[in-house]
Parts: sequence; C-alpha cells; structure tokens
Amino acid sequence: MSELRQDPTTEEWVIIARERAKRPADFVRQQAKPELPVFSASCPFCPGNEAMTPPETLSYRDKENQKWRVRVISNQFPALSPEGNTARKLNDDFFISMDGMGIHEVVIETPEHNKALALQEKSGVVDILHAYRERYNAMIRVPFVKLVIIYKNYGPMAGTTLEHSHSQLVATPVIPKQLRTQHKVAARYYGSTGSYLYADMVSHEIKSGKRIVMETGSFVAFHPFASHSAFETWIVPKVNQSSFGDISTNDLEDLAHILRIILLKLHRGLNNPDFNYVINSAPAGDEDKNCFRWHMRIIPRLIELSGFEIGSGINMNAVVPEETAKFMREMKVG
Amino acid sequence: MSELRQDPTTEEWVIIARERAKRPADFVRQQAKPELPVFSASCPFCPGNEAMTPPETLSYRDKENQKWRVRVISNQFPALSPEGNTARKLNDDFFISMDGMGIHEVVIETPEHNKALALQEKSGVVDILHAYRERYNAMIRVPFVKLVIIYKNYGPMAGTTLEHSHSQLVATPVIPKQLRTQHKVAARYYGSTGSYLYADMVSHEIKSGKRIVMETGSFVAFHPFASHSAFETWIVPKVNQSSFGDISTNDLEDLAHILRIILLKLHRGLNNPDFNYVINSAPAGDEDKNCFRWHMRIIPRLIELSGFEIGSGINMNAVVPEETAKFMREMKVG
Repeated sequence: MSELRQDPTTEEWVIIARERAKRPADFVRQQAKPELPVFSASCPFCPGNEAMTPPETLSYRDKENQKWRVRVISNQFPALSPEGNTARKLNDDFFISMDGMGIHEVVIETPEHNKALALQEKSGVVDILHAYRERYNAMIRVPFVKLVIIYKNYGPMAGTTLEHSHSQLVATPVIPKQLRTQHKVAARYYGSTGSYLYADMVSHEIKSGKRIVMETGSFVAFHPFASHSAFETWIVPKVNQSSFGDISTNDLEDLAHILRIILLKLHRGLNNPDFNYVINSAPAGDEDKNCFRWHMRIIPRLIELSGFEIGSGINMNAVVPEETAKFMREMKVG
Repeated sequence: MSELRQDPTTEEWVIIARERAKRPADFVRQQAKPELPVFSASCPFCPGNEAMTPPETLSYRDKENQKWRVRVISNQFPALSPEGNTARKLNDDFFISMDGMGIHEVVIETPEHNKALALQEKSGVVDILHAYRERYNAMIRVPFVKLVIIYKNYGPMAGTTLEHSHSQLVATPVIPKQLRTQHKVAARYYGSTGSYLYADMVSHEIKSGKRIVMETGSFVAFHPFASHSAFETWIVPKVNQSSFGDISTNDLEDLAHILRIILLKLHRGLNNPDFNYVINSAPAGDEDKNCFRWHMRIIPRLIELSGFEIGSGINMNAVVPEETAKFMREMKVG
C-alpha cells in the first residue's frame, strides 16, 4: 500500500508510491555526459573571454598572478533588472502587474570549463559560498528587495544548457506566494507550540536517524520525511538563523565540507545526475523571521513531473526516503 | 524591461522575461517523434491484450461488433488504492502520514496504438469526455474521496513513456494544499467583491480579447494574463459550475470541439509537443464551492523548470501570452 506523508514545512502531501517502488540504484543515470574541454574559446565564462560578459560585481583572485578563482557578473539576459518601480499596475481593468524590478547575477564557479561543482576541492566550494554570502548581503540591503534566492541549475533536465559550472542569485521585489505560505506555516507552528518548526524537525530527524545522510558540527543533511522527489536532500543549519547572509565564516567552511560530500555522493552514486539546488532565506524585514530557518535543498532531476503533480501540487515519489538516505549514508567517497 | 504579473487565481507571481524574449515560433519542436504502428503486440492497451490489464471499470463499445472505443481500467501500479483508512498517524513522534487511500484509473482513449488525442475525430473526444464524467461522478461519491483530478501525460517530457494514448483519474482522500490555497483565494475574492473570481476573469479576458484563442457557445480558451509557461492554455466554462461532474451532455460536446481544435493547433503549430492537461474541480462538500469554477489547463512541456522556479514558485516565461494567443488564434486547422 502507498503512503501519504505531509511535509511539515508546507503542509503539502506527498505520495510515497510503494506499488511503483523503485530501489535507489534504479535512479542511476544510464547515459554518460559528454566529456568537456578544460577551455572553450566560445564560452563567455572561460578565462580570457571576460570581455564577452556584462560587468563584474565581485571576483576572488590569486594574490600572485591576479587570476580569478570565482567571478560574479550581472546576468546578460536578466529575468529581473533594477529599473522601473514597484507600483502595481492595473491591466484590462482587472489584472495586476508591476515592473520586472530586481537583480540577477551569475556566479562563475571556476575558471575551468569542465570542472563540475561536485569535483571541486573544498577551497573552491568555500570561495563560491563566500561569494554567495557577499552578494546576498549586498542585494538584501537594496531598499526595494524583499527576498534573495540563490540557486544552481546543472544539466539540461535542470533547466540549463550552459556547460561551464555556474550558479545564480535573484533578488525579487515581491515575496513569492509559495514562500509566504511556508513562512506562515512556520509562524503558526511557533504560535501553537512555542518552539521553532525547523529546530524541532531537525532534532526529530537526528533522533530518528533513519533519513540522515550526514552530520557535521554545524549542519545536518537528510532526505526529508515527505521527500517530494527521489534523493531530495536538505542541508539545515543547527543554529536558528533565518538568513543565509548571517552565516559565520566558520559555518561557511563547514557548509562547504558537507555540500561537497553530498554532491560527490550524488555524482558517484547516481552517475553525474542533473540537479538543482536552492538556498531559501526569510524575506527582508519579516517580523516572524525567527520562526524560519534558512536551508539548502538539493533536487536531483531524475523524473519528469506528471499532470497529476502539476495539477494538484501533490508529488509522487517512487522511493522511500529512508532507503535513499541509507544508500547515500553508506556510500564511501574517500 | 521584464514584467511581473500576478495570477489572480493563486496570487502567485510570474516573470514575463522580456530580456530573454522568444517568439512563438521559437518553441516549435525540432526533432520529429518516432512513427508508431497501429497495433503493438506488447502494449497492454491494444485490442486483444485486454487480459494484460487490471479489471475494466467502464467501456464504450460499438453495438454491432462489441469492440470497445474507450476503455477505463484500474491502474496496474496505482499511486493510491482503496485499502486502509484515513486516520492520521504519528511517525518518529513528529511527522504526519496516512494510508495511501484513493482510486487510480486509466482511460485508454482509443484502440489504435498510434492515434494521438490531437488527431482524434470529434466523436472520439466526446467518448473520452463522457468516460471522464462517468468515472468522476462514480469516484466523487465514494465516502472517503475529497477530490478527483483528471489528467493526461503525453510524451516523455510530460512524465510518461507509454505510447498508447491514455489519460488518468486520481481520487484523493485529502485536499492538496495548492488547491486549498486556490479555493481560499476564490472565496476571499467573493467575500470582498460579491462576485465570482472565475466569472470576472473570463469576462475580462473576453472583453480584452488579446489573449483569447477560441470561444464557443459554452467555453472560452485563452492564454492567461500570468501564464506560468509558454502556450499554457485554459479552457473555462461560461457557466458557474464548480465540478466537472456536473457538465451537461451538450456542453460536453462543445468541450470536445474546443479541446480538439486547441490540441490540433498545438500539434500543428509546435510540431507535436509533449504536454499535460489537468481538469481541476472543487472538493467534495466544500461549502465555498460556488466560488470556484472547474477548468482545464493544457500545459505544453517545452522548457524545464529551473532552480529559481522550484525554489520560489515564481515561474519565468520567456514569451508574452498575448503573442502566443495571437499565434494560436490565427492558425488555421481546416
């Protein structure tokens, strides 16, 4: 029999579809990705081609030769840009719109065209997370900005055809309804229990242990009880911190460590799958923000959503998170 | 400059990303789908292979030779099944789950292995919609059922690898949070305006005309103001009807006509794209159900979701719905 599980952070249900049960190994990618060169002359993210990109907003460079290790640029085709204003407009006497105000930047994670994030040294991941924190904190202080989302698309099934490893930050002038719901759920939980939802979830996950993938001094990584898709992995800080911008430098090193191991386990265990990750924080100036805790979600893109999932918001997951977590936990990556 | 548009039915924002602007013709599928045979010996949905499927719950047959035109069966690998009970269970002292109770059926839309729905005669589409109504009404009357969702997956990007044209009904014992939100928005709109959200949306769409694809006596098809993805098409009845099960036989013929033309336009215009559709109705026994109107959403699967969209719920749409609607409106399908 299948099971319906409720995601405590959204109150949405997930179907753990046991009749269609798969084993973790059934999700291993069959076809190898094409080999890439270390440098591509036509790639705007490769060193020497810096003039092909919009202006740089940040870079970390080696002292001796001034070569960049990580470079942040404005997105050449920004989804949102800092022009216009945030006044709501009425369209056709009924519909609401506003200018597409915002900030959209790209983090070029490495000078090497073929270096996947999962295969970076720890120091490289630390650089990238430092860049996230620095640009996050710059953006969240812009007056019109309500929320900053950090995310990565890796591979065609994850929505990118750009090969050179990169991630993105988008600052929005509105709070997405989906996240507003999540914040409301967290605030209501605090109201009725007097304790924090994410703290309680993390401590119950640790106590149970069945879905834990890895734990460090400052973070825990697990496959959530109501995993919306196979191998969905959450990395949550152990301290109550609502905004990624507040992460300490020590914790940032710890996050680099756990993120790198998780990505390497996915890379080895599922044969280099396409994936997204996203870091969600509380909105700027949210009065209930203590009820929310920033976290990172890694979502391997293994199965396409069906019409049922699009139409209902209830995902079908054909594998039990306890099993995928065990698979990940027991994998050795040296 | 890009534009943020708000979906009035969910209050979620969509980015119409003009910097990445595409033309409707940019979405035409490049690679042809493989040709299929009219009969496949290994296909459980083909005539003669009926014993390969779970029991039939409905079929429409020709009087003279008793051959079926449409056949409804229990899903062999049901996501939900009518065993167990709806009691909530506590897991690890914290998480909520319940038995995966429900009903999951498959509508085999045609005996011909290679007949796509878009290429059916009108009488074939009428049969399929009759089957939807009949099974919807049987399921919604089952005591534990809260909601019945009708949907179709067509092609690998839409979540199916089954070639033989089919669609599905799932009856759930819970109301998905996503739909609960949509119903709340509609009820709140009624509370503050005294009129119905879907009625007002439809009448403003008709008055504006810019996003209309087609109109019949009983239905209007349009690309919504805040289309979440390119060529997203809504078909909405002109009468205030909360449940698909209440559609009249006359309206059902009219729906078959408009659905067939829309699918044929997508098939011809975008070269046989993968797509989903879903029919959403109000939940059983919802006291505010008059505020909601059932509708059909057709979602061509042209672009993969990115990490931003998964993480925020705000979709990026690279084409303006006014342009795609014009493209669809002006296309002649004979």
